[in-house]
Amino acid sequence: MSIKKDYIRPVDFKHGRVDMNHGAGGRASAQLIAELFARAFDNDYLRQGNDGALLDIPAGHRLVMATDAHVISPLFFPGGDIGCLSVHGTVNDVAMLGATPLYLSASFILEEGFALADLKRIVESMAAASRDAGVPIVTGDTKVVEQGKGDGVFISTTGIGVVPMDRQIGGALARPGDVVLVSGTIGDHGVAVLSQRESLEFETTIESDTAALHGLVARLLAAVPEGAVHCLRDPTRGGLATTLNEITRQSGVGMLLQETAIPVAPQVNAACELLGLDPLYIANEGKCIVICAAEHADAVLDAMRAHPLGRNAARIGSVTNDPHHFVQMATGFGGRRIVDWLSGEPLPRIC
Amino acid sequence: MSIKKDYIRPVDFKHGRVDMNHGAGGRASAQLIAELFARAFDNDYLRQGNDGALLDIPAGHRLVMATDAHVISPLFFPGGDIGCLSVHGTVNDVAMLGATPLYLSASFILEEGFALADLKRIVESMAAASRDAGVPIVTGDTKVVEQGKGDGVFISTTGIGVVPMDRQIGGALARPGDVVLVSGTIGDHGVAVLSQRESLEFETTIESDTAALHGLVARLLAAVPEGAVHCLRDPTRGGLATTLNEITRQSGVGMLLQETAIPVAPQVNAACELLGLDPLYIANEGKCIVICAAEHADAVLDAMRAHPLGRNAARIGSVTNDPHHFVQMATGFGGRRIVDWLSGEPLPRIC
Repeated sequence: MSIKKDYIRPVDFKHGRVDMNHGAGGRASAQLIAELFARAFDNDYLRQGNDGALLDIPAGHRLVMATDAHVISPLFFPGGDIGCLSVHGTVNDVAMLGATPLYLSASFILEEGFALADLKRIVESMAAASRDAGVPIVTGDTKVVEQGKGDGVFISTTGIGVVPMDRQIGGALARPGDVVLVSGTIGDHGVAVLSQRESLEFETTIESDTAALHGLVARLLAAVPEGAVHCLRDPTRGGLATTLNEITRQSGVGMLLQETAIPVAPQVNAACELLGLDPLYIANEGKCIVICAAEHADAVLDAMRAHPLGRNAARIGSVTNDPHHFVQMATGFGGRRIVDWLSGEPLPRIC
Repeated sequence: MSIKKDYIRPVDFKHGRVDMNHGAGGRASAQLIAELFARAFDNDYLRQGNDGALLDIPAGHRLVMATDAHVISPLFFPGGDIGCLSVHGTVNDVAMLGATPLYLSASFILEEGFALADLKRIVESMAAASRDAGVPIVTGDTKVVEQGKGDGVFISTTGIGVVPMDRQIGGALARPGDVVLVSGTIGDHGVAVLSQRESLEFETTIESDTAALHGLVARLLAAVPEGAVHCLRDPTRGGLATTLNEITRQSGVGMLLQETAIPVAPQVNAACELLGLDPLYIANEGKCIVICAAEHADAVLDAMRAHPLGRNAARIGSVTNDPHHFVQMATGFGGRRIVDWLSGEPLPRIC
């Protein structure tokens, strides 16, 4: 391969494929970075051109750091793709500590032979999600593995954000008497991915709810005094049921949910019945649970409902005193059952 | 599978294997995190138990963020493994901006069927490297992909650190007249991995140089006035040759190296001759290039040589005025040749 040719020939994003050279750290790597990643993500930090980024952080804050590996299959699904998902997932983890997300890093593990056209589509979706969220991708890395040693593309993102010094929000802070709210319908993401994977056709397309929630979180936090919101968490893998069990264990409390109050879209309910799945265990990528002091619950709910991503927000239960840390649910038939952790695995590689 | 049993039976790290449940976000995921990751990495930040970590940052600094995906094959090699490598690689990227690394995040992509004993060995090596470096792993994520869709384990790490407000170190800051130093022998890591992979037997075992360089960097920066060191970079993928070409392009300068001054261990030289490789293009994981003002070069060199990781530090060339941004080398035979970027790929999956 002549060096001259290498300089002149642009990357073929129409018919080209990832090859091992793209991960070798030489000329082909530099070219892929310049013509794809740097162009799509373009910002002052990436333009620094070093192996890390130099960043400014507002004074008087604590830092939040969160990371997520994304291995979803299929890579493209109704309502999104691994690119935007990898931005939303990490922005949300940062936002769930009450922090303002500021910067993202991205590391890509590409499989040899993966179509560069698909990679470009994913990177551009990621760039759009990053722009929409106002959180730039400031540094990154790309590796390539041999065909059969990966699965198209895996993306790990890490986010950093800042939180006011005195803000206390976390999974260990739920207190008996608190109210449990959810920002909208549950199960949309998992069912959308599953229907795509199994080529299931429903009457209406079910779309993933993948979205960045930091705007919604900022809105609801601004609506109540500091300290009113005790706990925020996004119910991803394991669904609402598993996430609430994590919180009861961390906080040393119990919960009582009202089954009829939990919002589930009719088509998601129908799909779950057909597939023998329980929406309580299905992953979400654009929903958050809010646990707050009872006297502020209405204000939080109103603030969420005033935001496009919280239109279907609902009060779904309350925090109880329970030495067993059980999540219980009052069913539509007047009974009561224990909502346990996800134990088996209904849906692999959902995020 | 009974829930009760799940509670009681500990993870079998002797004979067990990764299964899809370990990545599902339910009980098996929580158990693997508790019994492996949280135990090995144990620190106050991880114990917060949220999807992100709340961190303190000293005032009056700028932040540095760097990320690396690690896909090295084989996972274990003379002198290290993917675990310690994933700590060193990212700590070094942070240190190369003159920053003090403070925190790491880690995301794991595991292949179904991977031996839990190997995973444990890797995680414990990672924990030891993190402790030795004084940089805790504060948050993480674990995903599992089906057998044949991964390769044992991939690890992406992200590091953050702080740098004094007025410190200016970067790849674009090399100036004609500057001196080029390297902290030790080159090519050790790549040759060690290759010899393991190809089951090559040399008379003496060649070990990877994988190491965290932030201590060495702190030492050399303390030895000279602020501003004396213009550029630091670790020559990983693509080796010394490619890294120097990156710098000449970024800084808009040229370089002239002295071939006989570049330190190469005799057994690495011998292995390279046997394999038809050029040590200039072989990856290093515990070496740094320092470009500094000529009048401070001796002080930097002395400081490096006084540190265990810089014993073989050497002055290998100087920065020139060159509109073509070429890296040239005066050879041992009195000639001169251009040292180009890595173009083909001699060694895939070296980090």
